[in-house]
Amino acid sequence: MGSGSGFSAVEVIADKRDCRGLSREQIGWVVDAYTSGEVADEQMSALAMAILLNGMDAAETAHWTQAMIDSGEVLDFGDVGRPLVDKHSTGGVGDKITLPLAPLVAACGAAVPQLSGRGLGHTGGTLDKLESIPGWRAALSTDEIRAQLADVGAVICATTPTLAPADRRLYALRDVTGTVESVPLIASSIMSKKLAEGTGGLVLDVKVGSGAFMKTAARAGELADAMTAIGAAHGLPTTALLTDMSRPLGRCVGNALEVAESVEVLRGHGPADVAGLTVALAREMLALAGVTGTDPAEVLASGAAHPFWERMIAAQGGDPDAPLPVAAHVETVTADRSGVFAGADALAVGTAAWRLGAGRARKEDPVQAGAGVRMLAVPGDEVRPGTPLLELHTDTPERFPDAHRALAGAALLVTADPPAQRPLVLDARRPG
Amino acid sequence: MGSGSGFSAVEVIADKRDCRGLSREQIGWVVDAYTSGEVADEQMSALAMAILLNGMDAAETAHWTQAMIDSGEVLDFGDVGRPLVDKHSTGGVGDKITLPLAPLVAACGAAVPQLSGRGLGHTGGTLDKLESIPGWRAALSTDEIRAQLADVGAVICATTPTLAPADRRLYALRDVTGTVESVPLIASSIMSKKLAEGTGGLVLDVKVGSGAFMKTAARAGELADAMTAIGAAHGLPTTALLTDMSRPLGRCVGNALEVAESVEVLRGHGPADVAGLTVALAREMLALAGVTGTDPAEVLASGAAHPFWERMIAAQGGDPDAPLPVAAHVETVTADRSGVFAGADALAVGTAAWRLGAGRARKEDPVQAGAGVRMLAVPGDEVRPGTPLLELHTDTPERFPDAHRALAGAALLVTADPPAQRPLVLDARRPG
Repeated sequence: MGSGSGFSAVEVIADKRDCRGLSREQIGWVVDAYTSGEVADEQMSALAMAILLNGMDAAETAHWTQAMIDSGEVLDFGDVGRPLVDKHSTGGVGDKITLPLAPLVAACGAAVPQLSGRGLGHTGGTLDKLESIPGWRAALSTDEIRAQLADVGAVICATTPTLAPADRRLYALRDVTGTVESVPLIASSIMSKKLAEGTGGLVLDVKVGSGAFMKTAARAGELADAMTAIGAAHGLPTTALLTDMSRPLGRCVGNALEVAESVEVLRGHGPADVAGLTVALAREMLALAGVTGTDPAEVLASGAAHPFWERMIAAQGGDPDAPLPVAAHVETVTADRSGVFAGADALAVGTAAWRLGAGRARKEDPVQAGAGVRMLAVPGDEVRPGTPLLELHTDTPERFPDAHRALAGAALLVTADPPAQRPLVLDARRPG
Repeated sequence: MGSGSGFSAVEVIADKRDCRGLSREQIGWVVDAYTSGEVADEQMSALAMAILLNGMDAAETAHWTQAMIDSGEVLDFGDVGRPLVDKHSTGGVGDKITLPLAPLVAACGAAVPQLSGRGLGHTGGTLDKLESIPGWRAALSTDEIRAQLADVGAVICATTPTLAPADRRLYALRDVTGTVESVPLIASSIMSKKLAEGTGGLVLDVKVGSGAFMKTAARAGELADAMTAIGAAHGLPTTALLTDMSRPLGRCVGNALEVAESVEVLRGHGPADVAGLTVALAREMLALAGVTGTDPAEVLASGAAHPFWERMIAAQGGDPDAPLPVAAHVETVTADRSGVFAGADALAVGTAAWRLGAGRARKEDPVQAGAGVRMLAVPGDEVRPGTPLLELHTDTPERFPDAHRALAGAALLVTADPPAQRPLVLDARRPG
């Protein structure tokens, strides 16, 4: 294999296996040859396992990212007349922040080209949420994205298949070969798509806690460092915030439920944690975009971002005034003792919402627009046996028992003392 | 995948990736599911890389071996009326030992069911060597093997596709995925085939040195320990000798050239190293077989093993008296200085013979019966510029330059002082 190019898949694998660093040329060749089919799936999965176990240094990770970018198209929206800046979240329970954030940043004068994906597992997908809005469509052409960025300043749409196709193929392979959990591969996968998308600045929301992919601050910090290093190597100003994901964000988890909560936030109401994190991320984005003199907290509280939401949804065929789907069946979960409600575990709530139909187990599965979980009690509330804590929503009531099981045990905390206040932003990495 | 069985390929891979030991049930399932196609090549290669980098303990290796055996047929030659004992070599340059050894052990009263393979790379294959004998055929049925063991006491034939088919498929996968170099996988691959072959005892010739797969005594010792542990776990009395492979064995490397040298040894002549190692291995085999009262050194020196060779070859259609093929072209390599010839490097001579056509680069390539290298000088000979050191034989003279290049540099040692005597057997592991 690869005799024409002078490279061989077995030699590249053996170098990484034996802890020899891979050169830019080796990485460029192996990714290109994998894309073309010259390097087989079974060779790439062995290489991915060797990378997972032996690591890649910053230079290798930057080369790997570049090779992913080079496998496809690179978009350029430099002509939309506004500074471009984007956000990426590593995924959390109730994490609808993109929905209020993109219109808010647009309202403040920057443009947000958010090319996004669907959800898998217990964390929801931004596109799944927006698709609960009647008429809204995720697929846009590059020209449509450009026009909407210039006009509205905010686009949330499906990533195009022409961006980093090697990453798409590699991710599907890693998913079935136990090679997802590699920091350099996760970092390069995320960053290659954001770099190919053509944003001018990037804010990363790296989640930490039970409901996040990274359960500890140390692992999340490692991922944040790897991604900001890739940004720096590619000349993309990149900030990372490490934020808490031990509790769900807001009071709603599910597709239409989270859209409704996002609209509340855009009208200046809504849960403080969602509004607070939206503002914190907006500040970082505006700083990278060089937009000064506007306070996103004031803009959000005033409701001035809401018209940008309406225009963004309408531009993609959605009716922002249409009623959202609701689930056919609702059950309530109540407290089983007296005390103070200290909050719900993020993973437990995410799993319950997923089992109710809000998420998918396989990528070809459909999702239910109305399914999910709505928190009724907020941390600090005094409760006693029978006090409603949360509602379960689904169109398929046979799913209720599985959802209840996810919330059993210590998932819903009722304690003697009021819970301590938890900071939402745990740490930050800012460029230079 | 594997939901019906309760096992999942990703979970098995993740357990090994994260250094959790695999259970007998996990190993049995994954090998069986790989054989049936339920576990895909890209999953097995990721698992193989995780095993290579994180290891398998003795229990896991024994289970892995059992799973390979269970994928196919297990032969039983317990009815041939003689004790069965076999030998396996990890492969060396000029390693024709099986050819004189099998008839010698048969002449001493045991039976040798040697199911063997073809060569790949710089070490020759036993079947390739025997196929240079006009009429000889490698493929025998189980009934033919049984009849020949009862009648002659020695069979050297092709392994049947029904023995450990999972190992065959896995080996082909490891070959293209950089996952060959795992001691537990090498050990289980070798041992599964020998255990399925139904031998009653096994002597392993583990080669050490430049011409061997294992370059150091430490690595060779690790492999010997792994294989003898598998033998013990499966109740197969197993002895391992670690033997020197820094120099080629004998004076001839190549297919017909090695057959001719083997016949010389069987007639009581031939190089002392080949005869010495043949006798050393025969002693170990006879000890495992419980055959006492016969000195294999005397039998070999007397020529009494030669009729067993003739009968073994004739039983498989070969004409032991037919002239052997010779190469069409011969070139001589001479000394370029005065001094004492200290020997030739095994890897260099093996590579030269391979390039001359004695071996194959890909498993579908043919080999030349007459190609190879014949040593003219022996270590200790005084030489001066122009003294012939060795001959290169090939049917395709365009290969000469590549063979000369393999022998350039320090491959042919001419020193001031006579070389030190090197022991052939470096270490031994015997059962209990």
